[in-house]
Amino acid sequence: MSYAKLDQHLKKLEVLSHAQSMLGVDEAVMMPEGGGEKRAEAMAGLATIYHEMASAPQVGDWLAAAAAEDLMPEQRIAIREQTRSYINLTCLSSAFVGKQTEARIRSEQLWRQLRPTGDWAGFLPALSNVIAFAREEAAMRADVLKLAPYDALIEQFDPGSRVSQITPVFDELKTFLKGFIPKALDAQAARHAKHPPKAFTARFAIDRQKALGEVMMKAVGFDFYHGRLDVSHHPFCGGVPTDVRMTTRYDESDFLFALMGVLHETGHGLYEQGLPKAWSHWSVGQARGMAVHESQSLFVEKQIGRNPAFWHWALPVVKEKLGAETLTGWSLADMMQHVHRVKPGFIRVDADEVTYPMHVILRYELEQDLIAGRMEARDIPEAWDAKMTAYLGLSTKDNMKDGPMQDVHWPSGAFGYFPSYTLGALLAAQQAATIHKLHPHADEALKKGDVTVLNDWRRTNIWSKASTLTTPDLIVAATGEPLSARHFIAHVQQRYG
Amino acid sequence: MSYAKLDQHLKKLEVLSHAQSMLGVDEAVMMPEGGGEKRAEAMAGLATIYHEMASAPQVGDWLAAAAAEDLMPEQRIAIREQTRSYINLTCLSSAFVGKQTEARIRSEQLWRQLRPTGDWAGFLPALSNVIAFAREEAAMRADVLKLAPYDALIEQFDPGSRVSQITPVFDELKTFLKGFIPKALDAQAARHAKHPPKAFTARFAIDRQKALGEVMMKAVGFDFYHGRLDVSHHPFCGGVPTDVRMTTRYDESDFLFALMGVLHETGHGLYEQGLPKAWSHWSVGQARGMAVHESQSLFVEKQIGRNPAFWHWALPVVKEKLGAETLTGWSLADMMQHVHRVKPGFIRVDADEVTYPMHVILRYELEQDLIAGRMEARDIPEAWDAKMTAYLGLSTKDNMKDGPMQDVHWPSGAFGYFPSYTLGALLAAQQAATIHKLHPHADEALKKGDVTVLNDWRRTNIWSKASTLTTPDLIVAATGEPLSARHFIAHVQQRYG
Repeated sequence: MSYAKLDQHLKKLEVLSHAQSMLGVDEAVMMPEGGGEKRAEAMAGLATIYHEMASAPQVGDWLAAAAAEDLMPEQRIAIREQTRSYINLTCLSSAFVGKQTEARIRSEQLWRQLRPTGDWAGFLPALSNVIAFAREEAAMRADVLKLAPYDALIEQFDPGSRVSQITPVFDELKTFLKGFIPKALDAQAARHAKHPPKAFTARFAIDRQKALGEVMMKAVGFDFYHGRLDVSHHPFCGGVPTDVRMTTRYDESDFLFALMGVLHETGHGLYEQGLPKAWSHWSVGQARGMAVHESQSLFVEKQIGRNPAFWHWALPVVKEKLGAETLTGWSLADMMQHVHRVKPGFIRVDADEVTYPMHVILRYELEQDLIAGRMEARDIPEAWDAKMTAYLGLSTKDNMKDGPMQDVHWPSGAFGYFPSYTLGALLAAQQAATIHKLHPHADEALKKGDVTVLNDWRRTNIWSKASTLTTPDLIVAATGEPLSARHFIAHVQQRYG
Repeated sequence: MSYAKLDQHLKKLEVLSHAQSMLGVDEAVMMPEGGGEKRAEAMAGLATIYHEMASAPQVGDWLAAAAAEDLMPEQRIAIREQTRSYINLTCLSSAFVGKQTEARIRSEQLWRQLRPTGDWAGFLPALSNVIAFAREEAAMRADVLKLAPYDALIEQFDPGSRVSQITPVFDELKTFLKGFIPKALDAQAARHAKHPPKAFTARFAIDRQKALGEVMMKAVGFDFYHGRLDVSHHPFCGGVPTDVRMTTRYDESDFLFALMGVLHETGHGLYEQGLPKAWSHWSVGQARGMAVHESQSLFVEKQIGRNPAFWHWALPVVKEKLGAETLTGWSLADMMQHVHRVKPGFIRVDADEVTYPMHVILRYELEQDLIAGRMEARDIPEAWDAKMTAYLGLSTKDNMKDGPMQDVHWPSGAFGYFPSYTLGALLAAQQAATIHKLHPHADEALKKGDVTVLNDWRRTNIWSKASTLTTPDLIVAATGEPLSARHFIAHVQQRYG
């Protein structure tokens, strides 16, 4: 039976991706510098072996034959998703992928080198080259998938999501935020005038911060029997669903820096830990996509971790774990002023939840023009400056480092990824609204540190669903309506209005 | 060219063994318990993929064809060693290996379960089964390799070593030790009477022990750019030559427990770090075998780490790193009484360097009888007790836990391995004797913590030679004579007489 052969083959592939994931974690967390060269060889070699096995023609034959076999409904869905993965994996020629990968690696390396000085002119040729490859890729994928070129790129990250559905939602959000951000800043200024914000003055010992992070991870549902927390330069959530490796890094003068990062990554970790184990070797058993993954990290970071109800429970725990003397006299209101700070800035990754979508919408708009050929790489700085000025009142003129050179995505050739961040924020708010409608007392439980209803709903409606539905279908099935901006808008109005 | 194809193929295999090594390290050092099941699947899966690729018939064709190609002398040696590996890998049928592996795993699991209570009767059927498989394996290997059955097993661990050469040396050593051990104990008693031994009373903090271990590793030549030290339940030296992962475990009441283990594993690590990098994917670029590997760990542990000249330099460093207050009043003589303690005991892994060979010779003698069919598993306890009584004056009657059930080797099916430990001790002494003859002032340098001549000689004569010579040829090339007991005998006479 072809289905059984496929199942066997996917088990073998899972072994290779297990090795890739874990070697990636080890590289970031443990590896001494001198191990890097051989490790890079090993990673590249494993990727080659994986790609050869995953894209083998017999896989296509098995998929076609299995579709005609007597299968259970779950198996049909598995075949459908696996076919989608196979087409996405095989629709580009290996010659093209080879050349594109080389261009991406060179561009990303150059970016790392030139970003600190913001040398746009030096970087431009490499970026133009990467964009040319992305256009070619989009055209080839579009042809196979029968999609518009930019939609074909989004499809790699969020299966089923389309510009036609995202744009109206982003437009509504943009219009709202243009008016709301100044209002939120005024409201914040008024609060600060009445209640001046405190500054952290203590030194927060790293071992205490780590213990605090672990307590908070446990509190929001992380299973330490199947995961752990370590340190790396760039925090991430990696590993495999049965062994989730999270990392953070610590700032001794500001414990919220690590804690908020830990909560964010824990959201990713909970999703992974909640995936259906029996399907772990099939595409259908993987997390749905980047937007849904980000909805889980943002759910934990923003809907739980920046919720005053959570801090009602968390503040005494924080004081106990960090030492009461480090936060003498800090009230819940003092802490929330830190947790809810709004400040428009140049850098996306440093942005608060109110201004963050503007950074994403800017990139989403520019990406579409770049892929469609309506804009060239050389035009980016001017367009970037214009949009930053219009959306956040900040000019990036002659500031490439904090402008179009700030992110790794475009230099590394990832176009179609950015929307996922804000889709994730919208989905997190939409999920939270659904849960609070179903369970009006969820925040009362959260005040006691009890996340049961929040996690049970997500386990049933998001985590265990894995990739059985497209992103839009998953949203409707879980929340009863398609992607909408209104829940996020209501959320920030309530929290920052 | 077949040679080039082989080189390519071995590069691919190196990628898989890199993954296997590193996942093994991660499992012991980092993995949360719940990750174990999937990890076991991944390890088994990688082993299968590796075995399929390494034993593919075309590899045999390439080896045969390459032997007829126009090769450099180094390449000829590489082909010879690779052929040896290929024959060893392919001379058992996969059906046999599958059944044997299953029997070994079940026996080892049962042993772990029954060892604490010393339930020999419960364990016996599993051990008998493993022995039956070992006999069959030995016969099959003997047939292909044209060796005696037990020699064919030794060949897996120490290529070129034969019973005909080991036995006379072990016999000489056994005769010597029978007379020497009581003498050494008397001498020790006399020393203790004159200078009563001190006991450790301080608590040695783990972070300080770790810092001490790292300083000592550096002092004996370990390259931290290509390696690191961590903690695991069973100390080991793993990873790959460019990224050597060492582990230890700490006893807060006795810093020597971890320190001596760290020095031992560092010896293994130096060998790995000193292998020729350009040949890392070929068999010829691997460490020669277990005896030579053990000679390097024992060289660092015993010839350096228990040498009074080393402690002349090390004691002040130890006091500085652990805190002078933890060893107030401890003189070099006090410390050497600990470092040179002789005490016959039941357990091989706890034995001192004087009594250790007796444990090995006992096992070596019994193994030969077991593989030859002159003895059955049920006869082991009586024979074990008789030899322990004869060699060390200790009876293991009705004490299976501290007798024949103490080691993992036989339960896991490793026959032919034990001699390597004592061969390593003899070779370490033989190498040290050669170096001290060439460089009579080596100990003067060691008194200043300078291991340059000791490491330079080993780098040139052992590490960089990798597997270019068989074990016996390597010994002659390095020390000018075949394996001999006399240097070890002189060493223990000088140190313990």
